[in-house]
Amino acid sequence: MEITTKNFIEQLPAIRQTIREASFFAIDTEFTGLTSDRNVMPFDTPEEVYLKTIENSAHFVIIQFGLCAFQVHPESGQVSYKCFNFYCYPKGRVPVFACQGESMRFLADNGFDFNKLFREGLSYCGEVDEERLRTELKDRQDQRAATLEAKAEENGNNDSLNMVPVPPEEEKLIGEISVRIEEFLKSEDKDYTITNCNGFQRKLIYQMIDSQFRKTISTSSVTLENNHKAILVERKRSKQEELKLEQERVAQENEDLERMVGLSLVLQELSQARKLIIGHNMLLDLLFIIRQFFRPLPHSYQDFKKTMRELFPLILDTKYLCTNGELKVHIYSSVLAHVFEAVNKAPFIMPDVTCGFEEHKYSADDTKHHDAGYDAYLTGMCFLGLASFFKADLKDITHDPVLKAYFNRIFLLRVSEINYIYTHGKEPSFSREHVFFVSFPESWRQSDIVNRFRNYGQVHVNWVNSSSAFVTLHNRDYASHVIKTIDKASISICTLTQFKAKHWLGLKEGTIVIVPIMDTTSNISSTIIPTTPTIITPTTKEKRKKKKNRHR
Amino acid sequence: MEITTKNFIEQLPAIRQTIREASFFAIDTEFTGLTSDRNVMPFDTPEEVYLKTIENSAHFVIIQFGLCAFQVHPESGQVSYKCFNFYCYPKGRVPVFACQGESMRFLADNGFDFNKLFREGLSYCGEVDEERLRTELKDRQDQRAATLEAKAEENGNNDSLNMVPVPPEEEKLIGEISVRIEEFLKSEDKDYTITNCNGFQRKLIYQMIDSQFRKTISTSSVTLENNHKAILVERKRSKQEELKLEQERVAQENEDLERMVGLSLVLQELSQARKLIIGHNMLLDLLFIIRQFFRPLPHSYQDFKKTMRELFPLILDTKYLCTNGELKVHIYSSVLAHVFEAVNKAPFIMPDVTCGFEEHKYSADDTKHHDAGYDAYLTGMCFLGLASFFKADLKDITHDPVLKAYFNRIFLLRVSEINYIYTHGKEPSFSREHVFFVSFPESWRQSDIVNRFRNYGQVHVNWVNSSSAFVTLHNRDYASHVIKTIDKASISICTLTQFKAKHWLGLKEGTIVIVPIMDTTSNISSTIIPTTPTIITPTTKEKRKKKKNRHR
Repeated sequence: MEITTKNFIEQLPAIRQTIREASFFAIDTEFTGLTSDRNVMPFDTPEEVYLKTIENSAHFVIIQFGLCAFQVHPESGQVSYKCFNFYCYPKGRVPVFACQGESMRFLADNGFDFNKLFREGLSYCGEVDEERLRTELKDRQDQRAATLEAKAEENGNNDSLNMVPVPPEEEKLIGEISVRIEEFLKSEDKDYTITNCNGFQRKLIYQMIDSQFRKTISTSSVTLENNHKAILVERKRSKQEELKLEQERVAQENEDLERMVGLSLVLQELSQARKLIIGHNMLLDLLFIIRQFFRPLPHSYQDFKKTMRELFPLILDTKYLCTNGELKVHIYSSVLAHVFEAVNKAPFIMPDVTCGFEEHKYSADDTKHHDAGYDAYLTGMCFLGLASFFKADLKDITHDPVLKAYFNRIFLLRVSEINYIYTHGKEPSFSREHVFFVSFPESWRQSDIVNRFRNYGQVHVNWVNSSSAFVTLHNRDYASHVIKTIDKASISICTLTQFKAKHWLGLKEGTIVIVPIMDTTSNISSTIIPTTPTIITPTTKEKRKKKKNRHR
Repeated sequence: MEITTKNFIEQLPAIRQTIREASFFAIDTEFTGLTSDRNVMPFDTPEEVYLKTIENSAHFVIIQFGLCAFQVHPESGQVSYKCFNFYCYPKGRVPVFACQGESMRFLADNGFDFNKLFREGLSYCGEVDEERLRTELKDRQDQRAATLEAKAEENGNNDSLNMVPVPPEEEKLIGEISVRIEEFLKSEDKDYTITNCNGFQRKLIYQMIDSQFRKTISTSSVTLENNHKAILVERKRSKQEELKLEQERVAQENEDLERMVGLSLVLQELSQARKLIIGHNMLLDLLFIIRQFFRPLPHSYQDFKKTMRELFPLILDTKYLCTNGELKVHIYSSVLAHVFEAVNKAPFIMPDVTCGFEEHKYSADDTKHHDAGYDAYLTGMCFLGLASFFKADLKDITHDPVLKAYFNRIFLLRVSEINYIYTHGKEPSFSREHVFFVSFPESWRQSDIVNRFRNYGQVHVNWVNSSSAFVTLHNRDYASHVIKTIDKASISICTLTQFKAKHWLGLKEGTIVIVPIMDTTSNISSTIIPTTPTIITPTTKEKRKKKKNRHR
């Protein structure tokens, strides 16, 4: 079911109810742009990946959030689901957000409705802004209540010093309007609108009404169809009428506040449910969700894990689950749609899943790829398929002995050592003493590097640019010998640790570092593939555009 | 006529022809966000306004460009027009652009088609990028031509050192494919596609083909419908076939380059025409056009004027024309739609304007406001209406004695002294010795300030925040006395010049400076209106959202 400003307030109770009754959730999001993971290196620690990712993702926003709530019948084990697809964008409060032309085109080509987004997208806000909005509204309402109370007693004012003198050329107009108001008061008319005055004239009219008609006339500022401003003049309202109007206004303001907090209310409910949340390649989803609907992303990795445990204490990344040694032999590629293809065949057994509500339903035939709601549904179905392999008990999924090892681990793309973030503890550390940074003449080819390292066994080369590369030994035992014994003619060499201390992220501007071509399959393979280096110079950038799309 | 990627290449010659044949143009653009002019002060010089504007407009882009070409028959004086409405956005080359939620909502509410924009929007690029693209393409094509020449002579290679050894588990696959290629060569089949291989396997296959079938097989990499990669195997092409293929490729690449330079080609043609270009409130249009389709905006005001004279040597801003003393008494407001209303009545005489082409036509009944093409048309019609007031000779418009005084002057909103940029010379300078910056206790009201300045005649107060304001004397003769003789108890005071030297743009974060409420009418009035100060605190920001929309 699509949720926009047209049905948000009406559907909010049902959405909350669905979240409360669900057994687990699958989620997906669509963004206005992707973080560049170009500067992520295969030897990076999870902490380094996190820090590089948040540094590069600033200002992109989630514009669609897909939530698929699955319910497992406590006795029959029968699975049912309800899907929601939320549109959202920062509606003027946060004034500026960033877009990547490439991402916008990709989404539009896949049927994303940007007109619906910008016309009917939900608002949202972070915790601090919400708190501020609530306090300010409360203050305004209290203040108005006090003014309303005081008004009854008030008589005249001492504002004459602040009064703007009426210039001679405006005296006639003001006089005429004063007469016109007298006439209105004697008439049967409900109201009278003063039009065709400029801002200064309106100011003078308000001033005149305040001094001459304070007790008999109420005014309001209105905007006419032609966008001109005007003054609506009505008979003074009684105290009861004022109070009734005020109550209506407060109710409207409170509803407007809900609209303004908008999608954040749904994410808050989801967080408070503290149930299993499943995503596929979910690092960016989680980072963007935290930043957009809750709070800024911490610059400390430990604080990020703390935030995760607080907001989303139980998650499962199906892309990480696919790295399981027994599973991966049955899965050709860990791209979401390919996993879905795989789990619909033996040895996987897709459970029978129902959806009682037409408006919440998707089907595999829809192939609405890159619609967040559909991708959330697909993610949930992949999870059910993968879980079937381990004969997991859906009625008690959080205690499954195999799945447990995959909980709270967020998959990391493009790293070759520890390829996940563990939110509930430390990741294993690994040595990088067998990785070297080497500079050499521009004329060198792969064979020259391999030849220079011939005494230390097989090596893996990651080109940085045409005259430098990272070289990794396959046999770590040789690591300590390299710096001492390698022939240093025409080259300079240092360890990765030394290199990082000096140069990390200090590469010459314009240099684009590409890690070896990682096929989607390589994510589920632990073999180091002896790929050919790929040096991308700005010249050939255009051709590789497609690479930028996110591999799910 | 809407121009998108669907008809750009086909329509480009007709667009160029229209530009060459036109007498003058009206233009309009739509942006992803507006520059904040909040920090423009009424006493700013045109140079200060320019510098503040370029500082605040970074990263917003033009997404629609409207061009209305008017042609005046050299004998009959009959006017006809053709309108074009171009969609554009940075399609991945410039990776990131900024949007204001408010602007996107505003455009979507007014019927802007964002789906069309992101699916079919034109590409564009600046002069430097275009030059680079052309050089690189030329280099690549030359290089390929040389390779093609050399290929005929080539025999074998010495790349064995760079060859990846085939791991035992892949030997069977590679062997099978080798056999399959032998079979293909004996068959009648046109080609053969190798599918279901991962990146590493494909690498091994290419290597095998290169060593075993170099003289009989040509390969290409293809992407299948399911997004999997595959290898297309064909019989080795003859030199003639290769040359023919290469020619087709070059033609395609050249057309692709035109697509990439895209809308910039139209703007280049428009610039080269060196004819009168009309806009309404056109400062941002001109700045964004220069930055997006030509080159970065200069940080020197003089260089900006030089750029303007070079690119757009003859412009007219109808909003500035509306400040003409004789005209303004007949125009209620200088907002574009209101001017159009006004010029359709006496004393204006709208000439009979025709459009021979249904697809290039607009009508005043369309009211497609905020469609750039329509607004360009409206601007042109307003110009014709306004010009009728001066009985301008449309056949020789550039020599009209009245209009001449308005050429090359770009209107500046929100400034009270020199309200235009003159691109062909210096603007008059003006003294600001009668403007003072005053700090006072938070409890002070307008009357306290006025009272303190009572010895120097009437004053005009612009509040900065609750405890400071700019105070302008109506009678400049008193200026030199103020600092010497004013009672300085509880206040601090300095001249505007002193204040700027120290504090300009150094206001406390969160302070929002609002200049006096400028009604659209005030733009065409030279009287200083003694408005009440408006202090906007973040609390009441929400209510004033509408203010942000650009007053045209």
